[in-house]
Parts: sequence; C-alpha cells; structure tokens
Amino acid sequence: MKILRVNMDKLEARAEELADEYILAGNRALVAKIMLNEVPATCHPLSASNKLILANGPLVGTGVPTSGRLSVGGKSPLTGGIKESNSGGILAGRLASHEIRAVVVEGKPMDHEFYTLVVHPDRAEVEASPELRGLGNYEVHARLRQKFGPEAALASIGPAGEARLLTAAVLSSDMQGLPGAVCARGALGALMGAKGLKAIVVPRKGRYRIPIRRRDRFRQALRAYHEVIARTPQTSEIYPKYGTAAAVLALDKMGGLPTLNFRRGHFDQAERISGQALYELITQRGGEGATTIGCMPGCTIRCYNKYPDRDGKLVVSPIQYETMAMLGSNLGIADLDTIARLNYLCNDVGVDTVELGVALGLLMDEGLIEFGDGSRVEQLVQGIARKEMLSVLLASGCVVTGKVFGIERIPEAKGQGLPAHEPRAVKGMGVTFSTTPMGADHTTGVTFREPVNHQKPEGQVQASLNAQVRTAGYDALGLCFFVATAVGPEPKLTVDLVNAVYGTDYDERLITDLGKDVMKTERAFNLAAGFNKVHDRIPDFFRTEKLPPLNSVCDVPQEEIDQFWEELERL
Amino acid sequence: MKILRVNMDKLEARAEELADEYILAGNRALVAKIMLNEVPATCHPLSASNKLILANGPLVGTGVPTSGRLSVGGKSPLTGGIKESNSGGILAGRLASHEIRAVVVEGKPMDHEFYTLVVHPDRAEVEASPELRGLGNYEVHARLRQKFGPEAALASIGPAGEARLLTAAVLSSDMQGLPGAVCARGALGALMGAKGLKAIVVPRKGRYRIPIRRRDRFRQALRAYHEVIARTPQTSEIYPKYGTAAAVLALDKMGGLPTLNFRRGHFDQAERISGQALYELITQRGGEGATTIGCMPGCTIRCYNKYPDRDGKLVVSPIQYETMAMLGSNLGIADLDTIARLNYLCNDVGVDTVELGVALGLLMDEGLIEFGDGSRVEQLVQGIARKEMLSVLLASGCVVTGKVFGIERIPEAKGQGLPAHEPRAVKGMGVTFSTTPMGADHTTGVTFREPVNHQKPEGQVQASLNAQVRTAGYDALGLCFFVATAVGPEPKLTVDLVNAVYGTDYDERLITDLGKDVMKTERAFNLAAGFNKVHDRIPDFFRTEKLPPLNSVCDVPQEEIDQFWEELERL
Repeated sequence: MKILRVNMDKLEARAEELADEYILAGNRALVAKIMLNEVPATCHPLSASNKLILANGPLVGTGVPTSGRLSVGGKSPLTGGIKESNSGGILAGRLASHEIRAVVVEGKPMDHEFYTLVVHPDRAEVEASPELRGLGNYEVHARLRQKFGPEAALASIGPAGEARLLTAAVLSSDMQGLPGAVCARGALGALMGAKGLKAIVVPRKGRYRIPIRRRDRFRQALRAYHEVIARTPQTSEIYPKYGTAAAVLALDKMGGLPTLNFRRGHFDQAERISGQALYELITQRGGEGATTIGCMPGCTIRCYNKYPDRDGKLVVSPIQYETMAMLGSNLGIADLDTIARLNYLCNDVGVDTVELGVALGLLMDEGLIEFGDGSRVEQLVQGIARKEMLSVLLASGCVVTGKVFGIERIPEAKGQGLPAHEPRAVKGMGVTFSTTPMGADHTTGVTFREPVNHQKPEGQVQASLNAQVRTAGYDALGLCFFVATAVGPEPKLTVDLVNAVYGTDYDERLITDLGKDVMKTERAFNLAAGFNKVHDRIPDFFRTEKLPPLNSVCDVPQEEIDQFWEELERL
Repeated sequence: MKILRVNMDKLEARAEELADEYILAGNRALVAKIMLNEVPATCHPLSASNKLILANGPLVGTGVPTSGRLSVGGKSPLTGGIKESNSGGILAGRLASHEIRAVVVEGKPMDHEFYTLVVHPDRAEVEASPELRGLGNYEVHARLRQKFGPEAALASIGPAGEARLLTAAVLSSDMQGLPGAVCARGALGALMGAKGLKAIVVPRKGRYRIPIRRRDRFRQALRAYHEVIARTPQTSEIYPKYGTAAAVLALDKMGGLPTLNFRRGHFDQAERISGQALYELITQRGGEGATTIGCMPGCTIRCYNKYPDRDGKLVVSPIQYETMAMLGSNLGIADLDTIARLNYLCNDVGVDTVELGVALGLLMDEGLIEFGDGSRVEQLVQGIARKEMLSVLLASGCVVTGKVFGIERIPEAKGQGLPAHEPRAVKGMGVTFSTTPMGADHTTGVTFREPVNHQKPEGQVQASLNAQVRTAGYDALGLCFFVATAVGPEPKLTVDLVNAVYGTDYDERLITDLGKDVMKTERAFNLAAGFNKVHDRIPDFFRTEKLPPLNSVCDVPQEEIDQFWEELERL
C-alpha cells in the first residue's frame, strides 16, 4: 500500500510506500499519526503547514461489511484541534484499488486558483479547474463523472469550502454517483479549500482485493460476522428500515432530542419527523427499498435512503438523524419535505447541517428568525453561495455567530456545535463532548447503548470511556461504527478477521489497544496545540439550566471528568 | 476606602470596606486580585459569573501627577483571558471623592433592559434608563450631565457595548466633560453591556484628599517628582507638544509603523499623519495650547489634545497615536481630518479604534475594501449602530472577521489585534505580545525605550520582562505609564511618595514587587481559564514574512520566550 503525497506548492503528486507502523492503523488512526508526526500543532489551520488527509483502512477491499469508510482529517479550522470525519461512499474502496491507503495534501498554491487531483492508475496529476470554481457539489460531481466516466469516485467541496467557511464539508461519491457521503464536521472542507483543492477524482480501475493470508479462517470469520449482524435487531431490522432516523423518537422519548435551540428535550411534533414517518413517506413515494440502500459496496446494514418529492423525483440522498434533528426539532421545523430540501441545499453549497443548525437555533432564540420558518432558513442557506453576509456568518458556525451577536448560551464544546444528543438527558454524552479531542461530536462515543442509567451522574465517565475507546478502535480499522452495534460486544469477531487477513495473532484486546492509541495520539496533538483539561468541559448552562420535560441537568462531576485521561490509561 | 458592590440581579448596590490586602494594590492590581479571588476563570465572559470592575489607585487625590488613572477590568469577551484597560479622565478621582476604590458589577439583570448606576454621596442606586438605549456616547454624556450637573463624572457604553460587540469600549469623562477617556481594549464595553449597564454617574462632591501620614516628606518627594518630569524631554517637551502622535515618525523611521495591513513598516505618507503635522494643524485651527491638555487634574505632562475642523469646531478630543496608525497608515489613509472624523464616530458608537483598524486592514488586504478609502470606512463605522451586518462583523474584531472570511494571516495575540508596534521592527514587542496575559496590547510593556538593539533577537526577553514588570508596577499604583518614562529609571522617587502617604517603609523594590505580583496574579487567572505556554506566541507570519523596508522578521527564539515566566521569578 502507498501514501499519495500531493504537493500544492508545486502542484504535483508522488506515491510513497506505506510505513510499516501505519499498516494496521487505518482511517482515524492514520490521520492521528500523520498529524502528530508531521504537522506543527500550533500552525494556523488554513496555513500551508497544515495537511489534509484522506484515508481508508486495513480491511477495505476484503469484503468485510462496512470496511470501506473514508476518513478526512487535519487540524480543524473550526476547533483548532485535530479532527477526523468519516463517511461511507465509494472513494475509500476506489483509492484502495490503486493501492492507496491515504492521500496527504500538503502546502498551498501560490495563486488563489482551484485545482483537481486526478488519480490515474499509473500517476496522479493536479489539474487547474477554473471551470469548477463556484459550482455546487452536485454540478461538480456531474461534470467530473461526465469527463472521467460515470463510475469515477469523487470528493469535492462546494462554494462554502472555497470560501473556507467554518461549516464547510467534504462530499464524496455514494453508490448512486451522487455526493451523498458527507464528511461534515470540523470544517475540513475549509481546509480543502485553503489547499486550493476543489475536487479529487479517481476514475474506475479494476477491483483491488487485498491479499488474504489465511483464506479459510477468513471465510469462517466473515461468516460469523455476517451472522451476528443478521441476528442483531439494530443492524438487521432497525437501521435497514428506518436508517439513523430511528433515533428521533428514541431520543425524544428519553427527553434528549434537541428542540428549539436546546431549550427542550422533547419536540411535540417529533412524530412528524420520526424514522417511522420517514419510512412511510419514502416508501409511499419512492417504492419499497428506498430506505434500504448501502452507502458502500458490501454493506449489509444499508441505512442509506433516497428521499423523493411528491412526484417521486429525488430530493436528496440520504437524509439522516442529525440533520432531521438539527434542522428539524432544534429549529421547530416539523416538515420532512422542508428538511430534505434544506439538506439538499446544504450538500450542494457544502456545509455541515449540524453546525449550521446550531447556529440557526441561536438566532431563532434571539428572535431574529422565527422558529419553524423553513422558507427563511432556505433563503439563508441559498445566500451562502451568493456570499450574503448573514448567511456567511451562520455558515461560520455557532461560536462565531454567537460572538457576533453577543450570545452567551452556545451549545458547543471545543468550538464545535453540539450534535443531536442532549447531555442533560443522556448524561454520558456530556462526558464524551467534554473529553473527545474532536469537539462536540456524536461519532466519537455515543453512550446511549451503554449499560448505565443515562439519567444519573454515576458511571458516565466509564460509559463514555468505553464507548469512545471502542469507537476509536473500529474507526482505526475503517469500519462503520454502526457495525460495532452488532459486533462490538464480541471484539474477537473483528480481531479474527484482522488476523486472517494479515496472518497475525492479535488477541481480542486489539480493538481496545487501537482505540486507546488513537485517542492518546489525538490528545497528544491537541496538548501540543494548546488544549488541556480546562478545555474538557461543556458550557455551564448544561449544568445549571434544567431541561424540560425531564427538568434534568448534566451533573456528572467535573472532577470525575477531569480524571478521564488517567482512567483511559487504566483501560 | 470602600468597594462598591453592584448587584445587577437585584439592581442594588452596597459599599463594603476595602480589605487590607487591597490597600496598596490599586487599578490593574486590584482588578487582577478580585478576578482571581472571586470569578470562576472558566465562566463565559458574558455570563452573570463574570464581574466588571472599575478601580482607581492608592495615590489618587494626593496631587501626585497622573495618579488618577481609571482601570476597567474583567474576563475579556475578546480574549477569554483577564483584561484590564486604563485611561485618564476624571472618574477615578471622582470615585475617590466618595472614598470608593473600586466598583464591582456582578450578576446580570433578568430582563434585557439597560440601567444607570448613580453614585450619590450617601448611597448608590441602579436606575432603569430606557431613554438612553441606543444612544451614542456623546449624547449619553450630554444628557447625563444635563440631568446630574455639568461636573458629573461618567462612564458609558455606546450601541456597540449594548450589542456586546467584541470591539466595545468603555468611555469616561475627560476634563472637558466629553467621553474622551477611552478604556478601549479587550471588549470590556461588551462586558458592561452584558451587565445591562449603560452608564455610571458620579455627580460632583467636594474634593477628597487622601490623608497623608508624612506631610513634609511628601512635599519633598513630590517636588523631586515634578523636577524629574520637568527635565525629561519626553514628558516636558515631546508629549506636551505632540502627544502620543510623536510616535508616528519615530516608529516609521524604525521601520515599525504598521502600514497596509502590516504588510510594510514604513508608510510613504507618514509625514502627513505625523505628530508634527498634527501639532501644526491643531495649533493653526485651534490655537496655541490645543495640543497641550491634561486628561486628568494635576497632570503636568498634558499629552491630550482637541482636534478642530477647518472652522475651528471640535471634531474629537483627543486623537492619539494608536488611532492615527491603525485607522491611518494601516489602512493607507493619510488624511488627519478623515482619521479624526473616524475617531469621533468610533468613540460615539463605542468601539476600539485599534481592533477595528486591524479588522478593516484584513478586508482591505483581501480587496473587499480599497486601501485608503476613508469614506467607505466612514460608512462602515456608521453601519455599526444601524446593525448592518458587515459593520457588525468588523466590530466583532479581527479574529472573528478573519474566521468569517477564511483569512489565515491575522495580526493578533490571544485573540486581540495588534496595536501599532511592529514586532518585526521592534522585536521586544514580539515578546510582550506573546507573553502578556492581556493579549496583544501596547500598554503592557513597550520595549522601544529599553536599552537593547531592537533589530536583533538578543536580549528581547529581558527587555520585555523589564518593561512589563515596571509598567505593571506603575499600573498597580494607578499612575500613567507615560510618567514612568521620566521617573521609571529611579523607582525610589515613586516609592518615597507611597511611603510618605501611607507611613510605610518600602524600599525601591516596591515597583518591581508590585509589578511581579500583578503579572503572576493575571497569569494565574489565565492558567485557570485554560491558557498555557502554547498560547504565548505571535502568529507564524511575523517569524517568516519579511517586513519591508527592513526586510526583517521577529526571530526571538520561541524557546527563549517560553522561559519568560521562569525569568520573571528570578527578577
């Protein structure tokens, strides 16, 4: 396997062999290691010294379900700390077909032009692409597929990334050839924009299969894997039917669905934006199976969906829980068509729906926009590409929006807006949001399936620690954290696969060890960037302002949270 | 002496005796101690937990020249660290006439109304003042002087402070009864706005004279003091004639005048905005002496001025170096009338000319505003009160502006824009801006009169350390740091005065000890707020981008700067 180094000063790319230490460290682990080894932690995130990293993992191309996650990482322009954001789609697998484990984009162009990286089988080139400047992601993908073939795998930024906005996302190709696989959080699209990189194209190449050392053991282990996925309700029934949207009612019932700018944990119109409502609407308009689509080849969970309008025409694909909550309940918007349309617009201009939703919630709370006013929100999202000042400001994230409007009460951690998990209702999330080096991020360790009473402060540090380490472990292998819902309790299942592929003999501690290593590496980067324990906290209002209807606060003692990194060592 | 505690939850005020430990710790020292003792360092700066402190010093009312500085302090909404900003004017002395050493404003009102604190001889009251809402500082001062008498001493915020903008200043009365004494930096006006406090009024009361224990010694010491001020050219000739504006040509000749967004250190039209040009223009229009005005009673330096228009009508008073550079050379504006008009507008809406100048420079550099376009800048400043989005954004300071526009190259330290001292030309300023707990701030330790070669990296840490400790020492006594230009080399002169007033027997280490204590206290607050050595640095471009015409960089080794706080202990 190789690392493709892209030098944006010289506009050239060259491949180098993957160092041995990186072989088992894929995706998030690889991002963490390259960042710590190569990037000065105090550099400005938009500077030439920062690096944009795209990485896949050690099991991609083996046929292991969900093993084709794409990670995008770097020093976050939003948080100033390390950030990795991952998605499904086809790009990770396509890079692997060129034997590329990671693309590391370095430097920045002397001009202010935008370029496209084209990865050919024998070489990679950086091409000027003035014709793509200013285009939305859907148009960029359409044009590049026209130029490089319909099966080209892409990643791109929209106008938001070009403008280096702090909500800018990186969107990559899904199995339908659309930019539906969104690495949304941490403004890594702004980093890609600062690198002058509008798009990455990897045209089709014959399938690559990673050599498997122990074929029989692999087949056996893979069968066991599939069996567990198939017998776990979450991965065999709930996700395939409702997708992540199943969480709407689940969280609402727990009193933890962010509603009206995190003022409430229950949305009285939650049923209108529930996974059940979504399932019925999509099935009715789009036909059976339109909620059960894989985002990458070989995934048996298939939580992806296609959202059609009344005439059956595709609006957006997919629509997911975080968007439904943050552009829905959090803004008092209870209409799925509106949310789907907003989701499309956000994808096209290339912004994170979570961060934008938190920022919009702040201005609604101030009375500057009316709660529930979807058409005003639509105008505002459309204003981003037109560089309208209020739109640009909102697209600069919740902390900047809060600063400009003098708002004290901002739901954020380390500068990143909270996703749709209320730490006053699911208290372990308060620990995760406080401690993860990523800033408030639900992908780093959701606790609501941990065996703990979510409404009590006791045991939450341990619950978060377990969830974070396990998530980081699967992230290091490039696996979707939804698969961990099924196979997580039996780490041996995954370790058997790794051993079969690489001819190794790791025991079941591997997942924990990989996870710990990821987190310690990320933490080391952040310490060098100036973060410390003082930054491992959520805003005071989560501790003092009671959340209806439970009227609870996040009361996990800060002193316990302060022990998090010592506890990690003991794991 | 007393501390007046103002409770904005209950809208009431009560006086308490000044604790013994605070007696010699005035102004900046008192701010630091109260903040460390009373305010949770991790609180949001706009929250009820933060405190707004106004303080005077232990020599106010004695007749010691410049002993009537007013400090305003708190946790800065701009930097997130501790901040003290001081000015002259008459409020500090007036508070002393009520035997008040400090006003500590706590909590915040439940409503979103604005109030005025009125300090009567026998009581202090918090009055609702809806009629002042939205008014500029000049109108506020005029109305309150009408209501409370022409000699009332005031502090107020303009619309910027009400909106809690991150450039918002606190403006207090000068000797002409105008809001010319500006505590500008660190957005303490936003903190005052968050407290719901539009103004503070202290009507006239008979003069208070602090009891002097050793009268003869005092008279003797005071005579010596005056003599040194009178024989020092800076305090007896240069400041009285040119004011701080003398620095324009001095810095320009050193290649350290921020020009065109810190792209150059020499402004080819510097002579048009020089202290000499200012002196001639003011004298010609306003008559002899219009450049030689005291900002507070008893000051013999009198660096204040009145800037008249062509018809002799007052435009603004005073106009000072930092404004002339940051709204002048830094923006390519070479017309004093334009700068004076901008200064008036900034004072009226209540924003810091330095922070605004840095933010404007960024957008000029991006080509969004033309360098030198004073009328566009005027429109933008006028747009702040009208809440026009781009104006509001600029008035949110340089870091926020930079984030929204995706700008990497921002001249700031700890979130605060650089004042008009180029650290590539006067390299000690790189150390001061890196290390001071205040963020980039010229009032914490200007090195350009230190005995060191400013263009070499050697000795700058020591130069900055000496300047910072000395400045902090005089700040603790409530003295103007300009007087230190004269008396600084002989600390005994000031210590004799302290000993005479308080009947104490400090030796000449007192200034150093007070200064060290101030800095260590501020540093302790900042450490608790999450700052550490990693934040003690200036942006990389000052180290890598050569500044014409000297083509120099700030090359003081970071490892030396990292030793600053250990070096302080050795002093």
